[in-house]
Amino acid sequence: MGNKFEEVTVTTTKIHEGRVISLQVDDVRLPNGKQSKRELVKHPGAVAIIAITDDHRLLTVEQYRKALERSILEIPAGKIEKGEEPKDTALRELEEETGYTASNLHFIQRFATSPGFADEIIYMYVAQGLKKLATEQTLDEDEFVEVREITLREAEELIESEEIFDAKTAFAIQWWRLHQF
Amino acid sequence: MGNKFEEVTVTTTKIHEGRVISLQVDDVRLPNGKQSKRELVKHPGAVAIIAITDDHRLLTVEQYRKALERSILEIPAGKIEKGEEPKDTALRELEEETGYTASNLHFIQRFATSPGFADEIIYMYVAQGLKKLATEQTLDEDEFVEVREITLREAEELIESEEIFDAKTAFAIQWWRLHQF
Repeated sequence: MGNKFEEVTVTTTKIHEGRVISLQVDDVRLPNGKQSKRELVKHPGAVAIIAITDDHRLLTVEQYRKALERSILEIPAGKIEKGEEPKDTALRELEEETGYTASNLHFIQRFATSPGFADEIIYMYVAQGLKKLATEQTLDEDEFVEVREITLREAEELIESEEIFDAKTAFAIQWWRLHQF
Repeated sequence: MGNKFEEVTVTTTKIHEGRVISLQVDDVRLPNGKQSKRELVKHPGAVAIIAITDDHRLLTVEQYRKALERSILEIPAGKIEKGEEPKDTALRELEEETGYTASNLHFIQRFATSPGFADEIIYMYVAQGLKKLATEQTLDEDEFVEVREITLREAEELIESEEIFDAKTAFAIQWWRLHQF
C-alpha cells in the first residue's frame, strides 16, 4: 500500500493560520499526469477516552458544538498539545473534563476522522479504575461541559435519538458493546 | 439537550470558499458572556457504505489521501450532491467506486466526523444483495481507487497494520463484527 496513486505536491498555498486549525490548498499532480487541487485542513491531533466506571457506566460530556449549532453528548476528548505524548493528553483531558482520574489507561487504536480534507488523527484510549479527584473539573476558559454517566442501554438510546452524534463516540459505544466488562 | 451552553454568533468572517469545503471564523458569545472565536469548516456531507458480498466479504477501496500523504483502505464513500437524497448518493457511490450494485440498501445511523471544527455528517448504509455491473467503475476525473474484497479477519489485521485508518471504516468493521452475517 503506502503511496499507491500518489498525488505529488506542485505548489502549496496557505490560506489561513488559525488557533486550532489551518487551511491550505495544494496543487497536486495526479497519477495520470493531470493536475488537481486539494483543500487540506491541518489539525494537531486529539485523544478520546472510553472511561468506564466500576459500576459499568460510561463517562460522557455534554457540550455545545458551534459547527453543528447544538449540544451533543461525547466521550471526553481533547487536542494534543505541542510535544505532549498522546497518553498524557488522555489522562489530562479525562481529569480536566470529568474530574475523574484512572489507574488503568490503555491505547486501543487511532484513526483519521475526515481523511478527504483533514489530517486530524484521534488516539482512542480505554480508562478503568476510575476515582473522583478532589478538585473536580478544571476547564479551559472557553469550555463548558457537563458530565453524565450512562449505561450501555442508555448509550444506545442516545444514539437512536442522535444526542450522541459524533464518530468517535459512535465508535466508543460499539467498542464497549464488543468488550463488555 | 438541544442548546445547552449555546454559543451565540456575534459576527461571521468568511475566509475561503473552496471546491469541497469552505472555512469561516465566527466570533461567539459564550454562556458566561465572554467572547471567543470558532474556526468552522463547512462540508456538504457524505455517505459511506458497508457493502457485504454473498460470500461474506466487505468491499473496500484503496485510495491516496493527500491530507495523510499516503494510501489507505476505506469503505466506499462520497459527497452528497446538492439536492440529492443520501440514499441515492449511497447507491451511486457504491456503483461508481466499486462496479457493484445492491438490491438491499439500509440506513444505519449518521454521525459528525469532527464536531470540534467541521459540520461534516456521514450517513452510514449497509448494502447487501450485491451484483457486479457490466460497466465496472466510473470514477471522477481526479479519482483513482482500487477495489479490494476482504474478510472480517483480514479487516481486523488491516486495522492492526493501520492500512485501514479512518473513523468511518473503523466504525464499519465494528458494526460488521456486531452484526455478522
